[in-house]
Amino acid sequence: MAAPSLGNCPRLISSFYTMSQLPSDLHEALGKLICTDETVRRAHSSDKWFAHAMPDAVAFPTNTEDVARIMRYASQHTIPVTARGGGVGYVGGCVPVQGGIVISTDRMKRILEVNPQDGVAVVQPGVHTAELQDACARLGWFYPPDPASRKDSSIGGNIATNAGGPRCLKYGVTRAYVLGLTVVLPDGRVLTCGGRTHKNKQGFDLVGLFCGSEGMLGIITQAILRIIPAPPAQAALQAIFPEFAAAAKAVQDVLQAGHLPCAIEIADTYTLQAAREHLGTDVIPGDARGHLLLELDGSETAVEKEAGSVLRVLEECGATHTRLARTAEDVETLWQVRRGFSESLKATGLTKLNEDVVIPRSQLIDFVEFCAGMQRESGIPVACFGHAGDGNIHTNIMVPRDELGHEKRKEADALLHSLFAWVLSHGGSITGEHGIGLAKAMWFPSAVGSVAMELHRALKDALDPQHILNPGKMQL
Amino acid sequence: MAAPSLGNCPRLISSFYTMSQLPSDLHEALGKLICTDETVRRAHSSDKWFAHAMPDAVAFPTNTEDVARIMRYASQHTIPVTARGGGVGYVGGCVPVQGGIVISTDRMKRILEVNPQDGVAVVQPGVHTAELQDACARLGWFYPPDPASRKDSSIGGNIATNAGGPRCLKYGVTRAYVLGLTVVLPDGRVLTCGGRTHKNKQGFDLVGLFCGSEGMLGIITQAILRIIPAPPAQAALQAIFPEFAAAAKAVQDVLQAGHLPCAIEIADTYTLQAAREHLGTDVIPGDARGHLLLELDGSETAVEKEAGSVLRVLEECGATHTRLARTAEDVETLWQVRRGFSESLKATGLTKLNEDVVIPRSQLIDFVEFCAGMQRESGIPVACFGHAGDGNIHTNIMVPRDELGHEKRKEADALLHSLFAWVLSHGGSITGEHGIGLAKAMWFPSAVGSVAMELHRALKDALDPQHILNPGKMQL
Repeated sequence: MAAPSLGNCPRLISSFYTMSQLPSDLHEALGKLICTDETVRRAHSSDKWFAHAMPDAVAFPTNTEDVARIMRYASQHTIPVTARGGGVGYVGGCVPVQGGIVISTDRMKRILEVNPQDGVAVVQPGVHTAELQDACARLGWFYPPDPASRKDSSIGGNIATNAGGPRCLKYGVTRAYVLGLTVVLPDGRVLTCGGRTHKNKQGFDLVGLFCGSEGMLGIITQAILRIIPAPPAQAALQAIFPEFAAAAKAVQDVLQAGHLPCAIEIADTYTLQAAREHLGTDVIPGDARGHLLLELDGSETAVEKEAGSVLRVLEECGATHTRLARTAEDVETLWQVRRGFSESLKATGLTKLNEDVVIPRSQLIDFVEFCAGMQRESGIPVACFGHAGDGNIHTNIMVPRDELGHEKRKEADALLHSLFAWVLSHGGSITGEHGIGLAKAMWFPSAVGSVAMELHRALKDALDPQHILNPGKMQL
Repeated sequence: MAAPSLGNCPRLISSFYTMSQLPSDLHEALGKLICTDETVRRAHSSDKWFAHAMPDAVAFPTNTEDVARIMRYASQHTIPVTARGGGVGYVGGCVPVQGGIVISTDRMKRILEVNPQDGVAVVQPGVHTAELQDACARLGWFYPPDPASRKDSSIGGNIATNAGGPRCLKYGVTRAYVLGLTVVLPDGRVLTCGGRTHKNKQGFDLVGLFCGSEGMLGIITQAILRIIPAPPAQAALQAIFPEFAAAAKAVQDVLQAGHLPCAIEIADTYTLQAAREHLGTDVIPGDARGHLLLELDGSETAVEKEAGSVLRVLEECGATHTRLARTAEDVETLWQVRRGFSESLKATGLTKLNEDVVIPRSQLIDFVEFCAGMQRESGIPVACFGHAGDGNIHTNIMVPRDELGHEKRKEADALLHSLFAWVLSHGGSITGEHGIGLAKAMWFPSAVGSVAMELHRALKDALDPQHILNPGKMQL
C-alpha cells in the first residue's frame, strides 16, 4: 500500500472556512425550531477535537417531521446541514465547517420502548448510551456497545460513527445492534429501513449504509436496537507483566485457550510510568512494563471457572501480579484503573493526540516497538493502550500544551504521518472507532485507495447530490 | 403498512425471458474462461426454486483478475452477468433471467489462510461453508454462520445473501463475520474494502453494502472473515410440549431468565404430525403439539450448569418430555431430529413452498395461529418450524406436487400473499435469510416502501449504471 501523502491538505482550523449566508425567511419558515443566538451557536461549533466553525443557526427538532421540514428547507436553499449528537467526538465530525444549520438532537431524548419480548429497544437519537444501558439493565437486559464516552455520547452519534468500545471483542460494534432506522434524507424524504425483527434480508443493507456514515448521507431520527439477556455475572482480571511482550503474548494465549473475554485491554510501558506517578505504586508497581485488564461474563459458575483458567494462562505467560475481581464493585475498581491510564497521561501536563488505529492482532508487539522507536527518534512521547483483543490500540502522541499550533504541532503531524503509514503498510486501519471526520480526512484517500474513494463519491452523489449534509468531511 | 399488491407481476418461469445474443468474439476475447456447452449451461440455469433460464455462456474464473477481465468485456458489450455460488438458494437469486454470462465460482475454492493470531480466515468465494468451518475447527477456532445448506453453500453466496442459520440468535448473521472484501465492480474495476482488522471505521460501510446485495452491485472474489475461539463444549436440549403455546412461552422464559442459547428451534403441531409419521413415535410421541431444540455452548462447567437451569425453565413451562445431549454424538442426534422435520414434510408427498418470514419474537403464538387459520380456510396444509429465538420461522405451504403450475399453485400464491400481508402488518420481514431474488420480487416494494425502493434504485444506478449485474431481480 502506498504511504499516505500529506499533499497540500490544509490544517483544518476555525478561520479556514467561509460561512454561508442564510435566507432572510429562515425564522419565518422554521419558527421555533431555529435559534441564532451567538452563545448557542458557539456551543455547537466544535467537539473534542481542535477545529471550530460557527454555524449560522442551530435547530432543535423534537421529532422526525421537524427534521424533514428543516431538510426540505435546507435543500430548497442549498444550506449546509450538520447533525450533532453528544458532541464528544474526537475527529471534528460534527463541526459545521461550512456554517449553515446544525441540527441538535438535544430535544430528541426519549426512550420510546424497551421490549424484552421482542428483544428490542426503540429510541430517539439524542438518548445517551449509558441511559439506554441503564434502562435495559433495570429489566435484566443488556445493550452491549460501550464507547468510553457512553455517559455523554448519544445513540445517534454512536450509530453515525459505528461506535465501538472495550466489549466489541465479544459483542461486536454498534452496527451489530441496529435493527431498524428512521432516516431523513437530504431532500426531506423520510426513509424507514430494517425493522423490529432480529433478521431481515429485504434487499440491500440500507441500515448498514447509514451506520458509520458520519451524518453525510442522512439524519437518523429513530432507531430500533437489538438487546440481549443480561449475563448474570461478571469478573475482571488484572495482570501486570515485567515486559510488554509478555502481556502481548498473553493476549494470544488466552484466546488460543478457547476463551473469548468481553474485553482484553492492554497498556504499554510509557502509559504505566504515567499511571504509577498519577495513581501510585500500590496500583501500578515499579516493575510494571505491561498491563492487561480482562473482563469475562456469563453465568456465576461459568465466570468463576473461566476466571481461574484465564488466570493460569496469565501466570504461565509471566504475570508477576494478578488480581481477580468478582463483585460488581471490585470489577468497577479495576476498570477505574484502566480509565485512570487516560487521566494519568493527561496529568503529565502534555496534550494527548489520541489516535484509534487498528492493527491485525498479531502485530501488537511490532507496533508498540515501532511507537517506542518513534519516541526515541523524535523525543516526543508516544503512549499506547487500549483494546488489544481486537487490535484497536489508542495511540497517544504527547505534545506540550503551550507549544500546540506551533513547531511542535508540525512535528506531531509528521509523527502521525509515520504512524498511519506504518499501520496501513501492515494491513491496519487508521481508525477503528472515531471515524474520519476532519481529523483524518487528509489520510483517508490513501487509507482506502482510489476505487473506494470513487465509490464513496458515487454514494455521496447518489444520496446527497447537493452535498449539503455535513460538507467538508472525508474529502468527498 | 399497505398490504402488498400482486399487481400485474408475471410468474417467473423459464419461457418468460428473452436471451441476449453474445458477441461473436466472445471466445477470442475470454478464451478458456468461457464455456458454451449446452449441458454446462443447463447446469447453471436454476437453483432450488422453480425458475429456469439458460445462460448463453458460463465462465469459470480462477482469480480476481479473471473476473475483472470478464466484467470489462461484459460492460463494453452490455452483456448481463449473473454470479453463482453453490447454486442452492431458495429464491432464484442466481437464475440468469436475461441470459448472458453466468460467472461460476467453482474454480475459486481455495482457503488461502486460517490465522488464529489475527483471528481471520481468508478465502475465495467458492469455498463451501462447512469446509471453512472444518478448517477452523482443526485449529480450535470457529466460524459461526451455519446456514442449513452449509455443506453445499459457498461463502460467496453466503455473503451475497447475508446468510443466517440457527446459531444467529447468539452469534449474528454472516455480515458480523465479514471484515474485508475484494469485489469486482460492473465495469471491471477492482475494489478492496475493509481489511484484516476486527474494527474498521474508514469511511462508509462498503463491506456491508455488498453483504446481502445478491450479486447486483459487484462480484465478490475474496473475503477476509472473522473467526473466534471455538467454545470448548456444547449441549443440546429437546423439549416436547402438549401445546404449541407452551413451547412459545418457554422461548420467552428461557431468554428472560438470562440465557442466550446459540439456537432455539421450534416446530408446530402440523410439522410434528408429519415427523411422527416419518421418524416414528419413539422420536416424536403422540401427544407432541410443540417442540423445542436448544443449543448451548461455552466451557464444560458453564454448559453443564446452564443446561440444568434451562431444563428447569422448560419443565416449568410444561414440557412433558425433555432430553439433554452432552456428547458431540448425542447433540448431533438431536439436530438430526430437527433436520428430520424438513424431510418429514417432504415425505408427505407434498411440495414445500418454503418461506423464511421473520416476525417480532412476541408474535410467535399469534403467527402460528394465523397459519393454522389459513390452513383451515384453504385446506392447504401450512407447516411452521425454525429459528424461534429470532422470530425467523420457516413457513411451508404444502402443495400437491402434480398440481403445481396449475390451479393449486394459484391458491398457494394467494396464501403467500396473505402470509406476507400478515407478516408486514405485524412489523415483520418477508425474508430473514433467503433474500428477495425472483421469488419475492413482487412483494419487495410493498415490504420496504417507496422511499427504500427509490434508494435501492439510486444505489443500483450509482454502482451498476448499465444494470448488467444480475438483472431482473428485486424489481430494480
